[in-house]
Parts: sequence; C-alpha cells; structure tokens
Amino acid sequence: MDSNDDFSPAWLAYKPIANRTLREAWAHRLEVLTLPPFGLYSPLARAEQELKEALPSLLGVEVKRGRGIASKGLSLELTGGAPESFSLRCFPDGIRLKAADELGLLYGSFRLLAWIAQGREPEGLDLAEAPRLGLRMLDHWDNLDGSVERGYAGKSLFFRDGRVLPPGSRLRAYARLLASVGINAVALNNVNVRDPETRLITPLYLPRLAKLAELFRSYGIRLYLSANFAAPVTLGELDTADPLDPRVAAWWEERARIVWEAIPDFGGFVVKADSEHRPGPFTYGRDHAEGANLLAKAVAPYGGTIFWRCFVYNCLQDWRDRSTDRARAAYDHFHGLDGRFLPNVRLQIKNGPMDFQPREPVSPLFGSMPSTGQVLELQATQEYTGQQRHLCFLPEQWKSYLDFPVATGPDGDLARSVQGIAAVANAGDDPNWTGHDLAQANWYGFGRLAWNPELQPGDIAREWAAQTFGPDPKVVEALASMLLGSWETYESYTAPLGVGWMVNPNHHYGPSPDGYEYDRWGTYHFADRDGVGVDRTRSKGTGFAAQYRPELAALFEDPALCPQELILFFHHLPYGWMLRSGTPLIQSIYDSHFEGASRAAALVEKWKALEASIEGKIYSAVLKRLEEQKENAALWRDVINTYFFRKSGVADARGRLIHR
Amino acid sequence: MDSNDDFSPAWLAYKPIANRTLREAWAHRLEVLTLPPFGLYSPLARAEQELKEALPSLLGVEVKRGRGIASKGLSLELTGGAPESFSLRCFPDGIRLKAADELGLLYGSFRLLAWIAQGREPEGLDLAEAPRLGLRMLDHWDNLDGSVERGYAGKSLFFRDGRVLPPGSRLRAYARLLASVGINAVALNNVNVRDPETRLITPLYLPRLAKLAELFRSYGIRLYLSANFAAPVTLGELDTADPLDPRVAAWWEERARIVWEAIPDFGGFVVKADSEHRPGPFTYGRDHAEGANLLAKAVAPYGGTIFWRCFVYNCLQDWRDRSTDRARAAYDHFHGLDGRFLPNVRLQIKNGPMDFQPREPVSPLFGSMPSTGQVLELQATQEYTGQQRHLCFLPEQWKSYLDFPVATGPDGDLARSVQGIAAVANAGDDPNWTGHDLAQANWYGFGRLAWNPELQPGDIAREWAAQTFGPDPKVVEALASMLLGSWETYESYTAPLGVGWMVNPNHHYGPSPDGYEYDRWGTYHFADRDGVGVDRTRSKGTGFAAQYRPELAALFEDPALCPQELILFFHHLPYGWMLRSGTPLIQSIYDSHFEGASRAAALVEKWKALEASIEGKIYSAVLKRLEEQKENAALWRDVINTYFFRKSGVADARGRLIHR
Repeated sequence: MDSNDDFSPAWLAYKPIANRTLREAWAHRLEVLTLPPFGLYSPLARAEQELKEALPSLLGVEVKRGRGIASKGLSLELTGGAPESFSLRCFPDGIRLKAADELGLLYGSFRLLAWIAQGREPEGLDLAEAPRLGLRMLDHWDNLDGSVERGYAGKSLFFRDGRVLPPGSRLRAYARLLASVGINAVALNNVNVRDPETRLITPLYLPRLAKLAELFRSYGIRLYLSANFAAPVTLGELDTADPLDPRVAAWWEERARIVWEAIPDFGGFVVKADSEHRPGPFTYGRDHAEGANLLAKAVAPYGGTIFWRCFVYNCLQDWRDRSTDRARAAYDHFHGLDGRFLPNVRLQIKNGPMDFQPREPVSPLFGSMPSTGQVLELQATQEYTGQQRHLCFLPEQWKSYLDFPVATGPDGDLARSVQGIAAVANAGDDPNWTGHDLAQANWYGFGRLAWNPELQPGDIAREWAAQTFGPDPKVVEALASMLLGSWETYESYTAPLGVGWMVNPNHHYGPSPDGYEYDRWGTYHFADRDGVGVDRTRSKGTGFAAQYRPELAALFEDPALCPQELILFFHHLPYGWMLRSGTPLIQSIYDSHFEGASRAAALVEKWKALEASIEGKIYSAVLKRLEEQKENAALWRDVINTYFFRKSGVADARGRLIHR
Repeated sequence: MDSNDDFSPAWLAYKPIANRTLREAWAHRLEVLTLPPFGLYSPLARAEQELKEALPSLLGVEVKRGRGIASKGLSLELTGGAPESFSLRCFPDGIRLKAADELGLLYGSFRLLAWIAQGREPEGLDLAEAPRLGLRMLDHWDNLDGSVERGYAGKSLFFRDGRVLPPGSRLRAYARLLASVGINAVALNNVNVRDPETRLITPLYLPRLAKLAELFRSYGIRLYLSANFAAPVTLGELDTADPLDPRVAAWWEERARIVWEAIPDFGGFVVKADSEHRPGPFTYGRDHAEGANLLAKAVAPYGGTIFWRCFVYNCLQDWRDRSTDRARAAYDHFHGLDGRFLPNVRLQIKNGPMDFQPREPVSPLFGSMPSTGQVLELQATQEYTGQQRHLCFLPEQWKSYLDFPVATGPDGDLARSVQGIAAVANAGDDPNWTGHDLAQANWYGFGRLAWNPELQPGDIAREWAAQTFGPDPKVVEALASMLLGSWETYESYTAPLGVGWMVNPNHHYGPSPDGYEYDRWGTYHFADRDGVGVDRTRSKGTGFAAQYRPELAALFEDPALCPQELILFFHHLPYGWMLRSGTPLIQSIYDSHFEGASRAAALVEKWKALEASIEGKIYSAVLKRLEEQKENAALWRDVINTYFFRKSGVADARGRLIHR
C-alpha cells in the first residue's frame, strides 16, 4: 500500500450489520439492483459502484443486476422533480429510489447506505429530500507547493511541489466522501493567491486540473479556483488590473474562454481582494462592485459564478486609534453596494464580523442586502478552535448562525437568506484526513447542515458516529456526548464572553491574553484593572451594534439585554458587573475557565471508557490528542485566570487555585 | 563590480587628510618604508600591503621601499617584547614601529594609519601597546545554507547554499577590518550546530575551510568552529556520545587529528551543550566538566582550546512554578565544578545571567571560579537591542560589565578576571556589513575594548567616527553625541528598570509586555495591579542575589541599596515604591518612556543636521533607520505606558498622553 492509498474510510466504513434479523430485512430487498442506462463516468455509474461495494460489506449480499421494470429489489428511477432531489421508499420486497437527475440518484444511494449503516430498519424508510441550498462548497486554502494555509491535517490533497496531483485513489475517496454528504463544489487553492497559484488558470496547469474536474464531475462536484485580482499584471500580460480598463475586461474574457475550454463545467472563481495585502479594485480607486462585476461579466457566458469575499478590513490598524473598529468593516464596505452586483456574483461573508473566533455575533451583512446574492462562509479547519488538537464539534456553532434571525418572521433565519454555504476545508493528506479522527465529524456535519440547515447537531453527531464506528448505541451515545458541548467547552476555557483574540499571534494555538492587544489587526479587548471588553454601542462606542436591524441593534446596545455569551464583544464592563445569571463578570470568567478545563479533562475519561469498542490505532491517536487538550485547557485556564486576577485583584469566590 | 565586491570600507576609509600642514608633517616621515624580510602570506606582507594602499590615499605620498638600517622614514623592526605588542614613536625624520612579532607590526601599522586618519599630529605619537586579553574573538552564528541566526545584516560571509565560500575580496576586507582592531579569533558557525554544520569537521568541508584559514592566518586570526557534542552520533559513526566512553574519546582524538592536519593552526571548538534542546553530557548522566574535558583532551596536543558555553538552563519551564529561576541556572550548573576543567577549557559566560537583555546584572559566575579559565561573551548583533534598526552603541553597555567589580580590590574588575572576550558578530553580507551603517561602531568598539578594556566609549566613538567619516571635528562630535547615550535611550523606552523580556516572542523586535510572561523560557516580570518585578532576594525570593560575593549580595538584596537600573530584576515592588531619585516607580516608568522616545526622535534631527557632511547613500539609509527607530520608540512608549496604566490605574503626574 503506498502512502497515497493509506487513508481512512471515515464515515463510509460500511461496517457489517451485526443484527441478523435486521441484516436480512435489508438484504432480501437489495439483492437485485435495477438502474436506468448510464455512461462510464456518470454519477449513476458512481452510484452503482458505491452500492456494489457497500452492500456486500454491510449486509453480506451479492448484488445482482436486474433488467427492465423492477418488481422487486432496489430500483433506481429517473422521474420528474427538482435537481439533486430524491425520494427513497421501502416496500415489502424492495426499495425504490426516485430522482430527477443522476446526481439525485447518487445522493439517494448514499442516503440509503447511510440509513443501513446507522442500524436503522428498512420499514421506516420513506424520505423525500431536496437540498435547501443550491451551493454546498468546501474552500481549500491549498498552495501549489503542497502546503495548506491554516491546515492541521498534513499536506494538500491536490498539489505537491508546484504540480497538480493526478486523480488517484485518495482523491476518488475524497470525492466520494464529499458526495456522500451532498457537497457539490470545491475550490482548490488558497484565497491568498500568490504568484505560483496565479498560474493555475494558464495552459501550464489546466490540463491537469481538467483531469481532477473529470473525477469530481462524476460525483456531482464542480471545481472552482481562487483567483488573483491582479492576475493580468502578475502574469505579465498587462500593466494594470483596473476593472474599468477595457483591456482588463478583455483579458478576463479571454482568460475565461481558455479556462472553460479546458473544463466545460468549471464553476468560477473565489476572490479575496483588497484584504490583508491582497490586491483589489481599491488599488485603482474602484469599488468592490466594479471589481466583482469585472470578473462576473467574463464568466457569465459559461454559467460561472464569482464568490467575492467580504473579508475586507484595514489590517494595518493602530491600537491607539479607538475610532476604527474592524468589526464594522465588511458592512461599511459592502452594504452601500446593494443592487450593484451582477446576478452571478455571490458575496461570500464570514459567519461573524471578525474572523472565525470561537464566538462572534452574526455578521450584520446577512439579510441586509435584498438585491445581492450572498453565501455564508464557515471555517471547518480549526484555526481558532483548537487546530484539530482539541475536540470542537462545530455544527453546534454553525447551527447558532444558520438559525439566527437576520430578518423578522418565521423565515427570517440566516439559512434562508443565503444562496449557499462554503466552509474552509479541514482535510489534508493525513491518513485520517483531518488530523484528529473525531474532527471528521465537522467535515461530515458541514455537508449535512449545508444540505439541510434544519438538522439538529445531536442527530448529526449520532449519524456520524454510527456510520464511522458502527451502530452500537452505547458507542454512538458516548461519542455523541463527547462531541455535543465540545464547542462550548472550548469556548469556556479560552477567551471569555465573546471578547476573542486571546491567542498566540500568527499560529493561533494556545493562550496569550495580550498577544493581539497592541498589534495591527484591530483585535483588542482593552482589559485594565477595572474591566474588560469592547464598547461597540451606538451611544458611546464604535457604533457597530447599530449595523443590525433595529430589534437586534436594541438587544446588542443594552448590556442588560445583550446575549450574555457576547457581552464583552459589545460592551466594556467592570469586573463587578452582575451578569443575568447573578454571577459577577470576574467570577463568571473564573468559573467558566475552571469548569471548561475540567470538562476537557473529562473527555479523556469518556474516551478511555470506549477503549474496547474502538480500533486500537484510532483509540491511541485520539487519546493522545485528548490528553494534549486536557493539558492545554489547564494552561488556558491558568493563564486567563491569572491574567484577570493580576488585573482585577479579585480572588476566586470558591477558593480554587489561581496562580498569582 | 559583482555583489561580492560591493562593500563599504567602513573605518578603513582612509579619507585624504585635508589639512596641508598636517599632511606634509606626516608625509615627509613616511615616504620611505623599511621592513624586515617576510613571506608571501605573512602578517608583515599584509602590513606592507596596507601601508602601501593607505598612505597614498591618506597623504597623497608614494611609498618607496627603503633598504638596510633605516635612518629616516617609516621603519618596522622586529625586536623583543610580548607577543602582539608594539611600540610606535615619532622622530623628526621618521617613525619607528617596533614589535616582537609580525602580528605586532601589523597591529602597529593599523594603529599608525588610524592615528593619521583620525587627524592627529605626528609629534604626539609615542605609544607602547600590548593587548590586555590574549583572546579577542568574534562568534558568528552562521549556518551552511547562508542564513545567520539573529543576523540583521544580510547573509553569511562564509557559507552559502551548503557550501563554504572561497576567500574572495569581501572576506579579505573582513579579515583586514578584524585585524585593524586587534581581533585574533573567529568562530564561523552557529553555536546551534545542526546536522549539516556537524559535517564541517569532515573532509567534505575541511579543504575549503583551510583556504579561509590561510587568508585569516595572514591577518593573525585563528579559525574556530562550533561543534556538536553529539557529532559521533550525528555523523553516524558511534551509537553514543557519552564523554566517559573510551570509544567516544578515541573518536574525538581522531577527529582532532583530521581537523588539525587540514588546518595546522586551527583554534578549537565552541560548544553549546545541554542548552535549548542541544545535546550534551546530561544526556549520559555526566556533568559539564566531563563533557568539556572530553573535547579538551582531544584538542590539547594541537594547542586547541574548548570554549564551553555556560548558557545552560531549563528552557521548558512552567510560569506557574515560582521555585525555578532561570537567572540562577549558569551558577548552579557550573560553580561547583571549579577546578575540574582541563587547562585548555574556557567557560564562555554571557555578560548577564539571562540572555543579552538591554540591562542585566553581571553574571555571578565571573570571579567566582578561581581555578577555571573564563571568557566573557557579549552580543554585538543587536538581537534584543533594536536589531540594527535602532541605534544602540553597545561599548557603553559592555564597559559597564568590563569595569564591574566582580572581586574586591583595585584589580577586581571583570576584565581582569577573564582570559578573553568573545562577541556574537553583527556583520553579514550587506554592502555596509552591519545593516545600520552606524552599527559598524559596535563591531569597531568591540575590537578596541577587547584590546584595551580601559578605553572610554567616548574615545572609541570619536576614533570610529573620524576614521569612518573623516576627522572634521564638527562631524565627529555630532556622531559621538548620537552614539553616546544611545544604549540608555534604547533601554529607557523598552522594558523598565532591568525587568527585561517585554519583547515580541521569537523575533524579539518591538514591544509585547506579556509576550514572554506565560511562556516556557523562564522570562517573567509578574506585573499585576499592585506592582512589578521579580523577587530574587535570598530572604523571600529565588535566592539568586545570594550567588554574588557578600558585598554585592547585600547590595542586590536590599531594594534601598540595589542599583536603581536593576531594581526590578531583583525586587517585586509596588507601583508607589519611592526610588532614590524621589520619583515613584510608576512615574519613573512613564518618565523614562516619554523621555526615551523623545531622545529617539531627537536622533533624527541630529542626523539631518549632518546631511551636507555625509555621503548621500549612507545619509539616506541611516535616516530611514532613524525614522523607523523614532516611530518604533513611540510605539514602545505607548504600549509600555498603556500596559502599566491599565494595570496600575495611576495617571501620569505630568499629564502627558497615555492611551487608555
């Protein structure tokens, strides 16, 4: 087995169903498989392949091919309906999977296999599913040299030493895993597009990329690339990238022609412009609508989309300047441009206004630009949430954003306000894909939530656990109890109450309470001997709170009404401030840090109780990470508590050890 | 001119003497040069070469070669006397330079040229000089790939891309500059000896190193290398580096034979063992005497020396453990070993007990080991003192250590307690050698002080300025006024009162008050809302103060007696503590930071006043650095003042702006 073949099946483990009655109940319905005709690399071919590989493993059956109209067995049928949707229904002698297109049949096949692998009974199977969001995307921050920005799981799956990798067995497995949870779009390269990656859109790389696209296409996944706004200059072909210069427009049109000629179903471009030293329209005195529309116009003839990131802020801020607030930046830059973007532009907006902190308020841009397509950007790779060395089940965090009422009324949740969701991917070429085996649950959970934002994190956790480790309820419940609450555990021993940024600069792992306090990134908490937090009120702060719709603005403006978990994001409060729980602010900081570290320690014990049920290599690897988490959580607890004790002089009311 | 030839003459500029009377007073004494016979690459050949190049440039004379006994002109004579010493005397018709050896004649020639270049008159010339210290050494922290650890002046002068560079014109210029200030030893490679550099002592590199040695030998400079204590293992030749294993002893003896066969006057090895993850005798349960003697025995037959660094401490400390004090480490590790080292071992001890901070007390090891050879290690490269982007004239700092009374009595100063001085070099392949043009003064000043520790920094500054920029008194005095006090200026706007370590981790540039506060390096200041500083007293602190001789221990122990500039190194004091100046501690912090930043700003104006007198390229380059210093000093001022204001809540008594 070469290293390229050394990878975990993850949640497509297809472990044999131990219960004989259950196994047979499924088996007699699945021994014959009837399908419509299909081509060699079609989604339907992938569906057949998956069923023929999975069913013998799950049920011990040999799948025979049926012919004509199926009266029994598993029959896949192309009927009417919405794209990508499917229905699955159980009959006494068979199971019928209907879909409007081949991709629907592939998704339905995966859902059927998941249903079986989760240990469910066939009798209850009666599903009709359609994805709530048309775009379900993973953004890789991979570089051509094989490195991955903010990657914690090995090297790139796509690139190595300046080359695009050929589509081998690992990449096929990756595409299967994506399709199995409904992900239908992948951007391959880092949004920080440097000179080498700028060349991805040239004939030097396009033939190899077309090979990848062919593989991904068969799983219903479109390829995207991150583009360098200054590409015409970087590639040495023009002396400007000014979006209003006709030569620049012509350049992008010609470039689009070249790209789509190589990859006819290419998806489009992700663009990080005018952000953290990336070039953009501001360089030429143009605005972001002019910048985005330049590219959108070029790709429109091919059905291409431009994902224009709203992560635009001044990254050379001065902590001494209290008038600038990074949290305001995205709204300030983009809100006034509503209605000016072409229809194939999607503004890609991070969940919060800062940058993927464990806890932030929702970005006020969501729901505030009725005439502009928007996409939510989440971060599955755990940059600020423990770097896949800490357990942090992110669907719980994501759910808090997806459900957030960005508009009034029953349909006012964020999930209904966007056209898609993208997540920064957490997978690399580590044998277990994600560094921490249990971090696979974030990848799985992202796909599931993007497919159906109404799913509950608990259900996702249980589905994932059963598919990955087998449906033993004891194991599934134990794993679910580890995953659920792990985000809040991580939050509770790191920076308190939404203030964020108390991490070590640059690498973002471990505590450094003042690490970003005097830096240039607009990341301050202003802790002093009397209190802590950022005043973002309209009345006496930066006014960020006023960027929300009135009901929310009123909530955030008033510390007595503000959600407690975000109170220091919006308010600078004295250590004696009484929280709604009846606990003073400083005591609440101590409490959450002691309790969080203690919950992190408890994870080790929960895992140890599973030793007999988990394969040895995975057991040891996860144990090692949980032990690191326990130790690092204790360090977080001690550093943060000491930091606030030294500032406040207030002792812990419960007399626990705080180092002086 | 290829880049290898693009370098500044530095203080060997030999600018023409403008004063015609003075010029002629020198010229008529120097038109004839008489020398003893010499070989091709001898120091005397270098002396003749230097005189023949310099005198025409300085004085416009052609130097003719005299024969036999000289009755007039410049006569170089080998006579009796101490090695390296010389006398220089002016007569009505000539100048007589006498020395015991060729190197003395070379040093005397450089001194004569310096005397002329400084604009002095011949009539006063009557010098008899001998170096006070036999070893005057520069330690380069260069790696084979060309990088320089803590280098701020370009790449290595010796290595590039895994190769040893040939001895070209730049290296000859480098050797001349060293010899001109009396430096007689150079260690080429980083004390952190990694695998590639471990191979320097193999036939792969020795022939190239021998070429360098040949060049340096002609200037009286011996080559040294840093050695990897684990070399027998790293080179794959033994499975142990245990100093008591006879196979290891035999290995080093054979290795010494190979090295000295290639370079007969090779100097020996510098060793960093058991420090910051470097291997050492502790690995095998042996002590540092056993470790050092292993190598010393191997090199003794060749007259080699082992410089065994005392920078040994626990670099995986826990800030929560208040019982460990990194400042104690060197003394704790080495003091008890006095008398156990072979005669050709020199303990190489950093000036202070921590690590080259702007201000530290002297290391208590000096003067405390009467039976052990010691060498003082200084840092010319400005790791913690502004990285050659800030002006920081270090001879003033060094002088404070050299003069320090490590023993009682008139001869009790540190300079008399050691056998030599080494400095970590500040030169690289930048065209001006040192990044900051004015940082050349530190290199120059190190050589001068190592030659004669009684020199005054003011005299050194003026000598250097006159030799580098010409003897115009206005320019010389202006430069001296910039250099003198610049160390205290740097100190005054960075960490206060000896507490140190308020720098950004890793790169060590710019302020980060808590950057090292919760880290693993033993570098804490314990600032809280009430006070700041490290209690290192015997009575209630870590006991470090008791490592000094009784008179000093008593001084450091008592905050009322402790030198004020070190008071936070030895004591944790409340912000209201009244300093001997009558200023409360917190106000003194504010004052020194406001004043320091303002002095940094004044440097820009002082330099601007010199615009007409300084060559344009140098003027602009230095101006740019001084402007950066001004801005960065203001940042230091603001971050440190805000940090302490937020902690203490005490406002500035003079109402200056401290950001909240």
